[in-house]
Amino acid sequence: MATRKIILDCDPGHDDAIAIMLAAKHPAIELLGITIVAGNQILDKTLVNGLHVCQALNIDTPVYAGMPQPIMRKQIVADNIHGETGLDGPVFGPLVRKAEDKHAVNFIIDTLLNSEGDITLVPVGPLTNIAVAMRMQPKIIPKIREIVLMGGAYGTGNFTPSAEFNIYADPEAARVVFTAGVPLVMMGLDLTHQTVCTPDIITRMENAGGPAGQLFSDMMNFTLKTQFDNYGLAGGPVHDATCVAYLINPDAFKVQEMFVEIDVNQGPCYGRTVCDELGVLGLPANTKVGITLDTAWFWDVVEACVRQYH
Amino acid sequence: MATRKIILDCDPGHDDAIAIMLAAKHPAIELLGITIVAGNQILDKTLVNGLHVCQALNIDTPVYAGMPQPIMRKQIVADNIHGETGLDGPVFGPLVRKAEDKHAVNFIIDTLLNSEGDITLVPVGPLTNIAVAMRMQPKIIPKIREIVLMGGAYGTGNFTPSAEFNIYADPEAARVVFTAGVPLVMMGLDLTHQTVCTPDIITRMENAGGPAGQLFSDMMNFTLKTQFDNYGLAGGPVHDATCVAYLINPDAFKVQEMFVEIDVNQGPCYGRTVCDELGVLGLPANTKVGITLDTAWFWDVVEACVRQYH
Amino acid sequence: MATRKIILDCDPGHDDAIAIMLAAKHPAIELLGITIVAGNQILDKTLVNGLHVCQALNIDTPVYAGMPQPIMRKQIVADNIHGETGLDGPVFGPLVRKAEDKHAVNFIIDTLLNSEGDITLVPVGPLTNIAVAMRMQPKIIPKIREIVLMGGAYGTGNFTPSAEFNIYADPEAARVVFTAGVPLVMMGLDLTHQTVCTPDIITRMENAGGPAGQLFSDMMNFTLKTQFDNYGLAGGPVHDATCVAYLINPDAFKVQEMFVEIDVNQGPCYGRTVCDELGVLGLPANTKVGITLDTAWFWDVVEACVRQYH
Amino acid sequence: MATRKIILDCDPGHDDAIAIMLAAKHPAIELLGITIVAGNQILDKTLVNGLHVCQALNIDTPVYAGMPQPIMRKQIVADNIHGETGLDGPVFGPLVRKAEDKHAVNFIIDTLLNSEGDITLVPVGPLTNIAVAMRMQPKIIPKIREIVLMGGAYGTGNFTPSAEFNIYADPEAARVVFTAGVPLVMMGLDLTHQTVCTPDIITRMENAGGPAGQLFSDMMNFTLKTQFDNYGLAGGPVHDATCVAYLINPDAFKVQEMFVEIDVNQGPCYGRTVCDELGVLGLPANTKVGITLDTAWFWDVVEACVRQYH
Repeated sequence: MATRKIILDCDPGHDDAIAIMLAAKHPAIELLGITIVAGNQILDKTLVNGLHVCQALNIDTPVYAGMPQPIMRKQIVADNIHGETGLDGPVFGPLVRKAEDKHAVNFIIDTLLNSEGDITLVPVGPLTNIAVAMRMQPKIIPKIREIVLMGGAYGTGNFTPSAEFNIYADPEAARVVFTAGVPLVMMGLDLTHQTVCTPDIITRMENAGGPAGQLFSDMMNFTLKTQFDNYGLAGGPVHDATCVAYLINPDAFKVQEMFVEIDVNQGPCYGRTVCDELGVLGLPANTKVGITLDTAWFWDVVEACVRQYH
Repeated sequence: MATRKIILDCDPGHDDAIAIMLAAKHPAIELLGITIVAGNQILDKTLVNGLHVCQALNIDTPVYAGMPQPIMRKQIVADNIHGETGLDGPVFGPLVRKAEDKHAVNFIIDTLLNSEGDITLVPVGPLTNIAVAMRMQPKIIPKIREIVLMGGAYGTGNFTPSAEFNIYADPEAARVVFTAGVPLVMMGLDLTHQTVCTPDIITRMENAGGPAGQLFSDMMNFTLKTQFDNYGLAGGPVHDATCVAYLINPDAFKVQEMFVEIDVNQGPCYGRTVCDELGVLGLPANTKVGITLDTAWFWDVVEACVRQYH
Repeated sequence: MATRKIILDCDPGHDDAIAIMLAAKHPAIELLGITIVAGNQILDKTLVNGLHVCQALNIDTPVYAGMPQPIMRKQIVADNIHGETGLDGPVFGPLVRKAEDKHAVNFIIDTLLNSEGDITLVPVGPLTNIAVAMRMQPKIIPKIREIVLMGGAYGTGNFTPSAEFNIYADPEAARVVFTAGVPLVMMGLDLTHQTVCTPDIITRMENAGGPAGQLFSDMMNFTLKTQFDNYGLAGGPVHDATCVAYLINPDAFKVQEMFVEIDVNQGPCYGRTVCDELGVLGLPANTKVGITLDTAWFWDVVEACVRQYH
Repeated sequence: MATRKIILDCDPGHDDAIAIMLAAKHPAIELLGITIVAGNQILDKTLVNGLHVCQALNIDTPVYAGMPQPIMRKQIVADNIHGETGLDGPVFGPLVRKAEDKHAVNFIIDTLLNSEGDITLVPVGPLTNIAVAMRMQPKIIPKIREIVLMGGAYGTGNFTPSAEFNIYADPEAARVVFTAGVPLVMMGLDLTHQTVCTPDIITRMENAGGPAGQLFSDMMNFTLKTQFDNYGLAGGPVHDATCVAYLINPDAFKVQEMFVEIDVNQGPCYGRTVCDELGVLGLPANTKVGITLDTAWFWDVVEACVRQYH
């Protein structure tokens, strides 16, 4: 199987870091760039976190800073889950690694315009960078092979009863992406909550060893705590990593084609990914929505990637 | 255990008929009246259906006609599920049974005002009658012991991707009820879809025999067909009957206390019961939301009631 | 010209009282009943105020109590304008006059059903009574000759920047009325602010004398104060009286036919009467919207009516 | 008086061209750049129109192409008013003049970052360029001296009953700008409709002569026709020019400070500039809203500028 060329757009973040870990080393993936967006924390922090992860794991993929704020709404962050730095838990050494000068939005636009339609976007934070790129230069839209994103839910949300954090943090950007006419795969909470990382998984990755095993352990022990404090969960989902896993092997996932619409009304469903699970609207599907994944396979992939960093 | 005094507010409707069947004969329930509302079909039809069911099963509970239209929105009906008459399937004899002269809203108001706070409302259609009664005479509100209603979902809806039919048919009425400060139990699709009536259940009720067994069979064979046509389901849920079953034995149900709000914005989530399943809003719960029920026990109760009509 | 048969639906209120004064004595009007609704104050107070006005002016028209709360929203009152009693200013004697036993909604329904299509409704408060009557008994709708209401604005509102009080107090009821298909005349703030009652007008009505002159003076001196305190206006509009004046002589008014829609979204325009003044939507007009009136004629009519009460 | 340094952000468009005409030659204004946005027509057309106007009038200010689409909504254009080209009427020679390579958003960001806080933005089209610049680089916000924009209305709109075209074409961008905390001056329809250009005004500018007189005449004769066809108006307002006129002499305008909010709910008031004219919300004012202008003075200024192009 040919490798999948991707741009990973993220707001690190704990589970973002695991997505980077997978994307940078798995042979099925060719990681063209890492673009950073505000989300789990403000851009200054998510950028530093992304650079720290790359430095700690010796990943030399170029990193680009993107949008510091959502396209319309007042900015929110998820410090309840990711802490004051946005990546609380690990202790990193002094930061040497630097971001590129180019703006992430311009990197996305230029890379796509110069491509042959074979690049997949993997946004696992708020969709601000992707939406601004699409609206600044609509000619990129037919150049996108697929967008595989983490966000939303067809069940209940995690930041409001209706909305998942990534979408709620920039619903207007999400609406741009979901109406763009690009092939979409959505890994929502319904699926990502199946990747709950429990203490035994942490032990397993520690045993796999190396810098990635250590980073995994330092991060997920913090996540365990915030997930329990916020949701009473006994483990922490590694949401963002599922998108990379899907590109490694889509057959490990059950997805269902649905029509998905973003609610941008300023009411209790602001930021909801309205998924027509039963097909009652009679509209053409625009999204493959993740339903289940092969969890055993997933953790095997994570472990195999952890071992690559020895 | 003392019996529960209830007013059953319904829009018959197939599953409404089964709710009537249970409520009229089960010894745990004292059925004070049946109030009819527009919903599955227009009021003229749901009223006739309610009277036919009572006549066919020899139920002498007084029946009251209520609101012919929702309190604000344009009327919709569920003829895709319940057919042209609202109760397609059974063939009834000439209708002799008559409704009372009193308006259902006035019956609800007067009965509650004259009660000692021991009456439970069981609305299993749109909440129009209940909402109008509450707004016409707010003094009834502290008189209501509990409201056990069929409607809504914390997952996806069945009439729009966001909304279940009963709530979508009158979201403004639902908002009145959910903000009234009354103890609420909500049996939404998440729970009621666990009462899927399959062909073997139909056979079992036929074997139980009598007029109720016959009526059950005639109705549910029709429902099987529309559920398959509309949703691809291999059986028909008997949504409304779960509310009566809950009052017969709440211990057979797992419920979770949540804050529930009705979205009345004119967008894609109009009519959604926004359920704070994870408690992220930090607001006091206002509703016990049905999660699971003991299905085996449920069908045993239905069968036992069917046998009461011999 | 034949007299116009009307039901005056009001929430007294200062300008409501002047509407009653005109409707009860002007020879062009046959006042069939006064129905009371919550609005400027809670129903208990607006009812008492309506009865006091009738008693003070010796008006024997039957008075009916109606809806104590709006059909969906949380109740608001306009005590900033009308004071703690809803009719601050005048000092009334002990109240002897009583309301009828019948509910206002039932009076409206029964009167219209038994009519020959010659009755005009004149709602000058929130539209709750009218909307509930329409939804309880839709057969009244073709029986209504016309509805001449006070409410809304095509310019800015007075209770929010978008909404006028009567509509904002029950936007859902307003939506029922504006979508009912009945001939509508809307006297909004754009018109009613042309009836500002200044100190010289008060003096003129005092000079006209009698109980009505006294009541006018007592009321409007209070209104002068609250209008100044709330809006910096140097006089108080007698909004509600314009509807009765219109029925006395429509030719004294310039109206424009427009399509009018009520915004019921829970945003900054909740309760706005969206008036298509320029006809950009291309939809058929559903409302005659008041633009200007002959102010000199208007005050002459008021004075003539005041003199009738000697 | 010192000159005002401005960036003129426009979507030419007829009245945009007159704004350019004033800004480029009036001694009170120092025009740093012209940024173009999609609006009255698609960007390809508004850019060409802007370049044609500069070429025809020999204006050598740099021109920058900006956002081709609104930040979230589906694009709309005002071809009903401005024709197929966006500037129907004049016949231009072959286009030689070229836009700069730099993106308008980057020009705005870089110019403001390098400024001493003395630059005023004058957006007279949809606010897309300004909003994207603010969200890409929030550090520009305290650098903006003032924003003087054409858009909105406190009365009724011209593209929907609630909304004026510039705001309706990108309500989300408008919300960004109105919540940014920058000093704002809003010239809405209430004011700009006082600048109706009638045939005698056209004759006067023709008589003033030169290329600007000719262009004025060619453009406004077309506008006369579309304003009549669309709104039945006997003349065409030169909306956008009022913003430049305000900067030439604010004393010729009466403005009122108000709190202004943009309605972004997907209902009948989508895109409305909700202006708290009566101050009922008690919120601090964020906008000086244009009420009236000295019309005689305004046309004198226009004529004087026309004469500058001889």
